[in-house]
Amino acid sequence: MTEMGNHPRLQDRADSREGVPFLPDYVLFLLASTSAAASEEFHAEVRANGLRVPEWRVLACLSDADGQMVTRLAALSLMEQSRLTRIIDQMDARGLVERRSDAADRRRVRVFLTPAGADLARRMIDKARAHETALLDRLPGGSGRELKRLLRVVYRELCADD
Amino acid sequence: MTEMGNHPRLQDRADSREGVPFLPDYVLFLLASTSAAASEEFHAEVRANGLRVPEWRVLACLSDADGQMVTRLAALSLMEQSRLTRIIDQMDARGLVERRSDAADRRRVRVFLTPAGADLARRMIDKARAHETALLDRLPGGSGRELKRLLRVVYRELCADD
Repeated sequence: MTEMGNHPRLQDRADSREGVPFLPDYVLFLLASTSAAASEEFHAEVRANGLRVPEWRVLACLSDADGQMVTRLAALSLMEQSRLTRIIDQMDARGLVERRSDAADRRRVRVFLTPAGADLARRMIDKARAHETALLDRLPGGSGRELKRLLRVVYRELCADD
Repeated sequence: MTEMGNHPRLQDRADSREGVPFLPDYVLFLLASTSAAASEEFHAEVRANGLRVPEWRVLACLSDADGQMVTRLAALSLMEQSRLTRIIDQMDARGLVERRSDAADRRRVRVFLTPAGADLARRMIDKARAHETALLDRLPGGSGRELKRLLRVVYRELCADD
């Protein structure tokens, strides 16, 4: 059976309701499926380096801006705050991050990379950039780079709505 | 604090490692974040209609091609098969889908929409199409429709690799 692939291509079908198949022409399906298919290879590399995907996301977020609050990290890494709190506990225990009180407001807690965490973040970001280059090179006729340019526009627009 | 938004925009920062912030220029981050932000509004509508997001995905998949196997539905709806099996059990109990043996191979089980499930699928697809039109109209200068065109190219390419 060819039906077992992880990201099967939907075939156009003439016999669906109203004669028009829905999912292959639905932008939210295309976004979610393309995101999953594109991320899958790199996530395997993340796990091969002893990290879970949420841990990699936290390292990458803190590498761009160290000392973030958990609320902000949860939003950037697309995770429920309760789940992220447990992940940060585990990363703290492994010596990758540490919590410190905000200098201006002691009730606020911020998360910082340790030197070991910063080093691991740097190495994983190098791998992520290499994977991205290979991925974009593989897509036909510059479509990957054009997709990235448009995603920057759309991401800014959607997130500016908040 | 403005740090509490669900999908905050990353600011370019000149002070990150190597002087170049990573995430705002990383295509897997842009894909995942744009997908999450774009889906969020419609998923609220899905829940307001008494469905969970995975249930909506199953209805949409079956509406395009009824009588699929669970392995294929899991791949299309981006879910672990074990989780999807439980969701199909619950949808079966609600009278939205039913399992039947494959005509040619009785060991294979296929999932079909009931008339009630097909009716709900049709109504939700109409809502999804309306939401998509509004979303694409909102994005500046045709960028949404161009993004959709490119996603179709990239989706085909990534999924043809399987």
